[in-house]
Amino acid sequence: MYRKMHIPDDPHFYEKFYFTPGDLGFQAFETRFARIGVLICWDQWYPEAARLTALRGAEVVFYPTAIGWLAADKNNPDEGLAQLDAWQTIQRSHAIANGVYVAAANRVGHEGPAAAGVDFWGRSFVCDPLGRVMVEASAAAGDVLIATCDRTVLENQRRGWPFLRDRRIDSYAGIDRRFLDTPWP
Amino acid sequence: MYRKMHIPDDPHFYEKFYFTPGDLGFQAFETRFARIGVLICWDQWYPEAARLTALRGAEVVFYPTAIGWLAADKNNPDEGLAQLDAWQTIQRSHAIANGVYVAAANRVGHEGPAAAGVDFWGRSFVCDPLGRVMVEASAAAGDVLIATCDRTVLENQRRGWPFLRDRRIDSYAGIDRRFLDTPWP
Repeated sequence: MYRKMHIPDDPHFYEKFYFTPGDLGFQAFETRFARIGVLICWDQWYPEAARLTALRGAEVVFYPTAIGWLAADKNNPDEGLAQLDAWQTIQRSHAIANGVYVAAANRVGHEGPAAAGVDFWGRSFVCDPLGRVMVEASAAAGDVLIATCDRTVLENQRRGWPFLRDRRIDSYAGIDRRFLDTPWP
Repeated sequence: MYRKMHIPDDPHFYEKFYFTPGDLGFQAFETRFARIGVLICWDQWYPEAARLTALRGAEVVFYPTAIGWLAADKNNPDEGLAQLDAWQTIQRSHAIANGVYVAAANRVGHEGPAAAGVDFWGRSFVCDPLGRVMVEASAAAGDVLIATCDRTVLENQRRGWPFLRDRRIDSYAGIDRRFLDTPWP
């Protein structure tokens, strides 16, 4: 089982009020098709979460998520569209850094008052281990996406750019601290 | 001082032959303009490197790098152009994950036999803490890029999407291991 580890809190998502943080760490699960990991929503912004899930052997990481625009931002290329792009970028980067497939399923529709509230931006997608978007949904409708994930692609990507091989595991101490602004170690 | 921590090795870059890995960890340096971090080339693929540099207080992370295409891949949108896009994506993701500016300076030109060797892809860029590319160089020429980095932008981004606030520092154990395919902890 996985329980959402990273809990956000902002004026439209009072999650620190409603949720207690997950206590089971980062997991991967054997299925009949592949070994998969699941991370939830705010988790998607954390490279540590993707890394630990990949180190557990996940070949595909799923991100069920509910993220959207405030009305004021939606059509502003410097804000709303840049936020959407950042959301896709960080998840594609997890695929790249770890040599895994990533599948992000994001909510569509509107919640709250028409002129306020949140417009969920949909745009669910699957990308391959080089971060190439294979299939992508619209921002509006409840689409169904199908993508073929191939272990050969995963293997070739990890062979061509073997990032996991070269990790400096002797030098990542401190990543479990809030700040390193005081002398460390 | 910083010494390159992550050392690649592949048929066009025998770096494990020529270089010994850096031993000074991930650093940030106070300058008269900002607190900056420097990571080198292969380091650019490692979220841990960017994170530890940001935790040391870096506001701008610089990536001097020499990466390019093999002749066969260069103009192939599914290979060479996807590699370039992955390279830009992972560095933009470090800006997003950490709320920092990123400046990547990549080599141009060709090395090795005309039909073989490496075509360095240039395309140096600076992006802001939302991952927006502010300025970008060509793939061919030795351009000079100038971008204004503003602490207010950095502060606003970290206030709007406060990723550092919500890090689960109690749960990142294991990130200093090669694999987590055996029971852990």
